[in-house]
Order: sequence, then structure tokens, then C-alpha cells
Amino acid sequence: MTTQPAEPSPRRGRGRPGHDQAAVLRAAVELFNRKGYDATSMGDLAKELGLTKPAIYHHVTSKEQLLGQALDDALDELTAVVTEASKDRAGGTSAYGRLREVLRRSVEVLVAHQPSVTLLLRVRGNSEVELAALERRRWLDDRLAALVTDAVEEGALRDDVPATLVSRLLFGMVNSLVEWYRPDGAYDRAMVADAITAIAFDGLARHEA
Amino acid sequence: MTTQPAEPSPRRGRGRPGHDQAAVLRAAVELFNRKGYDATSMGDLAKELGLTKPAIYHHVTSKEQLLGQALDDALDELTAVVTEASKDRAGGTSAYGRLREVLRRSVEVLVAHQPSVTLLLRVRGNSEVELAALERRRWLDDRLAALVTDAVEEGALRDDVPATLVSRLLFGMVNSLVEWYRPDGAYDRAMVADAITAIAFDGLARHEA
Repeated sequence: MTTQPAEPSPRRGRGRPGHDQAAVLRAAVELFNRKGYDATSMGDLAKELGLTKPAIYHHVTSKEQLLGQALDDALDELTAVVTEASKDRAGGTSAYGRLREVLRRSVEVLVAHQPSVTLLLRVRGNSEVELAALERRRWLDDRLAALVTDAVEEGALRDDVPATLVSRLLFGMVNSLVEWYRPDGAYDRAMVADAITAIAFDGLARHEA
Repeated sequence: MTTQPAEPSPRRGRGRPGHDQAAVLRAAVELFNRKGYDATSMGDLAKELGLTKPAIYHHVTSKEQLLGQALDDALDELTAVVTEASKDRAGGTSAYGRLREVLRRSVEVLVAHQPSVTLLLRVRGNSEVELAALERRRWLDDRLAALVTDAVEEGALRDDVPATLVSRLLFGMVNSLVEWYRPDGAYDRAMVADAITAIAFDGLARHEA
């Protein structure tokens, strides 16, 4: 269930003095995901933290700053994973091996940073901060498509589906995690990563069943 | 690019008298998807349509009404597809065949109703209308998971991945369409449906390559 938007209110009992930056950011991301970024005001955030509206500005300069920090949190992790997977051509690891690895590690990032990745995947480009994030997402998409192409070219993957389409669908499957994965649910991250690689590479059909 | 939220403004040149309900609904869904439902006001919608704020109420009683209509549009189509796939047990079509069919037809619905399905997939449950839509989505998810279970039990699908997890991932892959599919892009709906069934059932790896 969710709380309703409400008037700015004076400090409430659950507010604690001395919020650190990380706690403010966590509360902001949770609120952005619940209400939508555009519909969330600094007044809403102050209320959520049990602060007065003026007091919130001791912790943060603007809503955009919090959005930028959250999106960078998600993007920095995903960029590290994709950069690692994109190199190593001379090192002997096949593109296929690196693609499997990037899928597994993406699952780990999504589970460990689920709130900020959720926010990232909902970005629509309504501000400079969002447009910059979309630009970084495009870079990731391009690197992933290139990795799929390399895996096709080395003969490990079927070549009858366009690599960019494969890449969209694979990471669409991974990204869907943010909508339904619950850390306290029935599946741990290893099970999810195993299921994704099993479906993606070997398929669900019993061959010759 | 996007327009910025703005003050309610008087009728603009592009406004036409006699908007029909379908045109108002289309504009509302486009605006909800672009700005977020919670951040969109009736004033924003009036401006988008080139109407004054009082005039918009000749066409629609509330924002919630428009949301409900859009979500029903998506849900009615998806419910028809899933209902069709869920019956027919006596008719001879295997659960596996019906699962393949429901994937294909889901792709068709997503492509044909992309704006309203996009809205549906972003619903967070912040109102009665949204909670009712989430309840209908859960029914769909349950039917799809049951269909995967049936396909496993008839021996057509591997049984080493839990059926509910398979169902989440398969339809996560399908649903990702709304984020990246463009009707004027490189892939038509048949190519996307072929790619999804190829990946899901046969996998990407060249077997024994």
C-alpha cells in the first residue's frame, strides 16, 4: 500500500536529526519510485523524512541533484559490468562467455541496486539529468548489442535473429526483474541468473522430447 | 523531446472543436506516459488538446476516468488472449502450443495497444483504479504461470526452472517491448514474435556447435 500525497507538515515523530546523505537519497529514490519523479516535490520528501521544508535544504540542493545521484549509482555499476565484458578480447575469454557473464552480473546489480535501477528504467527524458542518463543507457545498449554480434560471429550463437533484437530481448528479460523481484521472495539472485541463462541460451523446450 | 508542464492557457491554434472521446483518451494516455500519471493535471490535458480547463470537462469527468478507460483497453485485450489460451484442454491443443500462441498474441496486443499497455505496466497502485488494474494483472500472471506449469507437466518444457519464474521472465521479455519497440523501426511484429519464441523455446546457443 502507499501513502497519499499530503500537505507539507511539521516535523513528525519518526524524523531523526542528522540524516546522512545516503539515508536522504534512499528515501528520495523510494518516493520517486512510488509517486513518480515528476509528481514528487521537495515538500513531499521533507515530510517523508520528518523534516520541515526549509530543513531539507540543509541536506540537498535540489530534487534534480538527488535524481542525478540515484541514476549515477545505477549507471556506474552497470557501466562497470559492461566495460569489463566488452574488453578482454586478447585475453582468451570468448564473447559468448563474456555475454553469459554480463547477464549474471547484471542480475546481481539489479538485485543489489534495485531501487536506483528501477528509477533508471523509468526515466523518460523530461530534464537534462534524465537526458544524460538516457545517453549513458544508449552507450550500454550499444556495447551489449556489439557483444551479442561478436558471439554470433564467433559461431557460438544462432545467426537467424538480428543481434540488436536479441540484445533488446535478453536485457528486457533481465530488466523485468525490477518490477517483480523481491529480496525476501522465493528466488535468490543465483536462481534468477541460472533461469535467465538457461532460457536465453538453451531454451525451454525439451529438445527431441 | 518533451513539452514542459505549463500554466493552463487559453485555446490554442491546434485545438479543434468536437474532439471525440477516442482522441481525448489518446492524448491523455500519451501525456500520462510522457509526464507520469500523478504529475499530469486536467489543466495539462486541456492545454494539450487546445481546450480551456472548463471545456475539458465537457469531454471527460475526471483524470481517473481516463486512466480507467486506458487500463481497461489494455487489460481487456490481454485478458482475451490469456482466457483463450487457458481453455481448450479438451480440444487437443497442447499447453505448449497454447503457450507459444499466447506469446505471439501478446506481442500483437503490445504492438497494437502500446500506449495503453505502457501505462498499465507502470501502474503503481496509488489509487483505487490502479489497485483494480493490479488485481487484473495478477489474474493474468496466475493464468500464465498455470499454463507454463501445464506445459512442463505434459513434458514439453524443461522442469528444472520453477514455472512461476519462467512465466515472469518470459512475459518480462515480452513486456520489455513497450520500452523500445517502434512501429516504424527495423522490426515488424512477426519478427519480434519469432525472435521471442526462438529465444524462449530453442535458446540462442548453437547446440553442439
